[in-house]
Amino acid sequence: MTRRRKFWGWGYEGEGLTREERDALGAALATRFPTADLTSEDPPRVEDLDLPPPRLSPPAGLHAISASDPYQRASHAYGRSHRDVLRAFRGEFPHPPDLVAFPRDQADVTALLDWCAEVGAAAIPYGGGTSVVGGVEPEVGDGYRGAVTIDLGRLDRVLEVDRASRAARIQAGAQGPRLEEQLRPHGLTLRHFPQSFELSTLGGWIATRSGGHYATLHTHIDDFVEALRVVTPRGIVETRRLPASGAGPSPDRLFIGSEGTLGIITEAWMRLQARPTFRSSAAVLFRSLEDGVAASRALAQSGLHPANCRLLDPTEALVSGVGDEGRSVLLVAFESADHPVDAWMARAVECCRDHGGEVPPVSDGDAGPEDPGALRWRNAFLRAPHLRDAMVAMGVVTETFETAVTWDRFEALHEAVMKATTEAMAAVGAGDGWVSLRFTHVYPDGPAPYYTVVAPGRRGAEAEQWATIKEAASEAILGEGGTITHHHAVGREHRRWYERQRPDLYARAFGAAKATLDPDGILNPGVLIDPPR
Amino acid sequence: MTRRRKFWGWGYEGEGLTREERDALGAALATRFPTADLTSEDPPRVEDLDLPPPRLSPPAGLHAISASDPYQRASHAYGRSHRDVLRAFRGEFPHPPDLVAFPRDQADVTALLDWCAEVGAAAIPYGGGTSVVGGVEPEVGDGYRGAVTIDLGRLDRVLEVDRASRAARIQAGAQGPRLEEQLRPHGLTLRHFPQSFELSTLGGWIATRSGGHYATLHTHIDDFVEALRVVTPRGIVETRRLPASGAGPSPDRLFIGSEGTLGIITEAWMRLQARPTFRSSAAVLFRSLEDGVAASRALAQSGLHPANCRLLDPTEALVSGVGDEGRSVLLVAFESADHPVDAWMARAVECCRDHGGEVPPVSDGDAGPEDPGALRWRNAFLRAPHLRDAMVAMGVVTETFETAVTWDRFEALHEAVMKATTEAMAAVGAGDGWVSLRFTHVYPDGPAPYYTVVAPGRRGAEAEQWATIKEAASEAILGEGGTITHHHAVGREHRRWYERQRPDLYARAFGAAKATLDPDGILNPGVLIDPPR
Repeated sequence: MTRRRKFWGWGYEGEGLTREERDALGAALATRFPTADLTSEDPPRVEDLDLPPPRLSPPAGLHAISASDPYQRASHAYGRSHRDVLRAFRGEFPHPPDLVAFPRDQADVTALLDWCAEVGAAAIPYGGGTSVVGGVEPEVGDGYRGAVTIDLGRLDRVLEVDRASRAARIQAGAQGPRLEEQLRPHGLTLRHFPQSFELSTLGGWIATRSGGHYATLHTHIDDFVEALRVVTPRGIVETRRLPASGAGPSPDRLFIGSEGTLGIITEAWMRLQARPTFRSSAAVLFRSLEDGVAASRALAQSGLHPANCRLLDPTEALVSGVGDEGRSVLLVAFESADHPVDAWMARAVECCRDHGGEVPPVSDGDAGPEDPGALRWRNAFLRAPHLRDAMVAMGVVTETFETAVTWDRFEALHEAVMKATTEAMAAVGAGDGWVSLRFTHVYPDGPAPYYTVVAPGRRGAEAEQWATIKEAASEAILGEGGTITHHHAVGREHRRWYERQRPDLYARAFGAAKATLDPDGILNPGVLIDPPR
Repeated sequence: MTRRRKFWGWGYEGEGLTREERDALGAALATRFPTADLTSEDPPRVEDLDLPPPRLSPPAGLHAISASDPYQRASHAYGRSHRDVLRAFRGEFPHPPDLVAFPRDQADVTALLDWCAEVGAAAIPYGGGTSVVGGVEPEVGDGYRGAVTIDLGRLDRVLEVDRASRAARIQAGAQGPRLEEQLRPHGLTLRHFPQSFELSTLGGWIATRSGGHYATLHTHIDDFVEALRVVTPRGIVETRRLPASGAGPSPDRLFIGSEGTLGIITEAWMRLQARPTFRSSAAVLFRSLEDGVAASRALAQSGLHPANCRLLDPTEALVSGVGDEGRSVLLVAFESADHPVDAWMARAVECCRDHGGEVPPVSDGDAGPEDPGALRWRNAFLRAPHLRDAMVAMGVVTETFETAVTWDRFEALHEAVMKATTEAMAAVGAGDGWVSLRFTHVYPDGPAPYYTVVAPGRRGAEAEQWATIKEAASEAILGEGGTITHHHAVGREHRRWYERQRPDLYARAFGAAKATLDPDGILNPGVLIDPPR
């Protein structure tokens, strides 16, 4: 494998939009942003970067697994939010890690944590580096002698498969494709497909409560975790493989979502599924967003558990190529490895029609090709980060934010978010921009609304423009009863709002737990909670 | 309402087996235990009890909500395990609470905790008092000036219903029937039916991770908790109503299963369901237990999510009145408020036949009467505690224990449990006894096996006999990869095994969280963890 990740943006070097795609994108944006200068800037070259010199050098025992060359340091300096790509694209790297380490096994992880504690360095756990909330950014302040990013990429194997229980023991550094490729010969799949699937890792998914493929029922990775192994500065935590338990508060649940602040997840027993052989999908059109919302709620409360149930507002539908001028689209799909899903889809179609949905011919398949609409949508979905990078180069402010809220409050939240972001865009001179909505997941008691902002930026001021829009959106979300994140995690970017959402006494209890496992406060300082220092 | 709970056994005074039922039970047991003396002893009378004098008297402000009469103290001295009923039946009450308090609101709960901390008393949260693991037993040792049981029974109202999100805010002291009766006018139901349903409470279910109605998918109460309000000695924890979140480790999950050691749950927003109108059920016969296990696994992994999927071994089937000499029975049921479930049942029947299941005519119903087999089984299920009390009076050692384990280890676990308990029964002179198995819940990655022991006791030695059997069973469970409890909780009885199952560092982290919320260690000492004193 000679391909190398881009240090400044999504994916691998050489990947991205073609010149034709970029031109088409530019032309499309120009019709929306007639006064904007959309000239594409060129990305930086690693040899032109001016990084601060590393403040740490590894002891002999860790030398073989450590790197401090500019490429590795720059590659590990940011996640992949709009702000991250923007800063990297402009060559701004004031706080790269001093060292990047690539442990080969659990003993290496332990040795790294011991060394960090010894020298007073911060330890930044790193999976695929796709955080959009500053979750892997080593800006740790002067309280540390430096920052060591611990990249789990070498721990990428499926170690054991239990066919009877449909579970596997998997190393935390396995990226989506690598993990699925090792499960395929067993006829099994984790079927967890976050948008970052290509690059993100099992450990990252668990540490950040990633949201995946399923739009209903088992949406977060949480439900698929059977047991964990975590290396903390105080030692190993290994939970027992169990299909379920009632023995005290779940130990796994303390670490799921802990975002690298309590320890480094090195492996997990994961619940798997047989590969689906029956599929049915449809892209249902709705005259109004309200009708689409009502149908989504009906499906979420039906007990049918569709694998897909994604509502796209007219803008999202159009952009994704599944829409029809002015209509909302609800993507509905069922899949099963066990049985035909006709009865499920038939009832879902009824639910949609009950709420005014216009249902095109339903596409069925026994392991055959998927519905073209669904395929188009999925390709657009996975390609979105490349599109984002191209827009960054054109000076466009583009980012997503997301939440979850109970059904009774959704309408008010949506109104508040649209108003706040529209006003904020106008206030930062990006009034031509737009905000679109989709539901990424739906639950019996509420949807997970997901918003995309695309706005013309002012070169050099995009970060501040985005910060103003994001602040307005986050205030609206918190004020209307939403969560500051449904599946993007808290990281460093969401801290302010997370602190208002999280009960104070819970924060103190969690802080006490952290102080026990990480007494020197070396793990991912600034994420979730201030370390005990 | 003039009816009063029995202070020594299950249910209300005046309830229990009829004389005819008791005679029939005695006759049936006599054929199995030909040498046993099965004479029924009479239960104790409260006026004959000799309780130690209360060591505490409430301050003026708490006088109106406190009781210290022998009936209340004795009623709250134990849960409802075999050992509890045995001790109460024999009039042994060495450690009743010194005071029983009945808070009317959150302020009363806070005042009670403040007072306990002030005088150095232990505070024992009490819901329905149906713990089978010593979870409400105020034997707190000499480190406390006394023990105050805090009975939430007065907090039994549904405070708010959100129809759109199908959720309700419910006080923690609501017992099963009272809770359902208040939801019925809204067409909604929690549909959580543990065996203790009649007496146990919402708060107790949440504090102990109760297992309910659904045999697959949403088995524990955990999944139905949308938000919590908990009174801790340091103040109130109130979590945000959310359909889902990815913002850090779930605060709710810290309190779910905390068994009264972190605070007192006073209310919760709970996810509800529409009342089912479509049903289908069948009692499928299997020639061998292995075939029934294989069919259960197929159903658990099918994605059909049956509401019931309970495998009964030949003994359980016979005792429950649904069996056929020597066969195992799998009770399968689907129910829905949204759609007919024929397609679901049809596929389930196929799965059962694939594994040799003999399927009698399937019973369908649109809100009509349930299948007679299912009804007979449910009646036997809810009546079991009365049967148990009658057996205690006859000197029979009878108790249940339960676990969950991955499918790959089930066979070895089952063999080890049967061997260990059979040998232990023989060793304590109860070799005529039997152990039977059912699956109460099944998961894609494993079943929750549930065992019932019925053995002839030696009058006065039953507790020791049971302790020996239980110890053997628990060692087998732990040794073969099971959990010490799937839904009975840890309490004081399971501590020894729980400590081996729980990762040590997790125990320390949890202990630190407890020390933060309950710095004086007044809450339910002896349960889950030793208090910080």
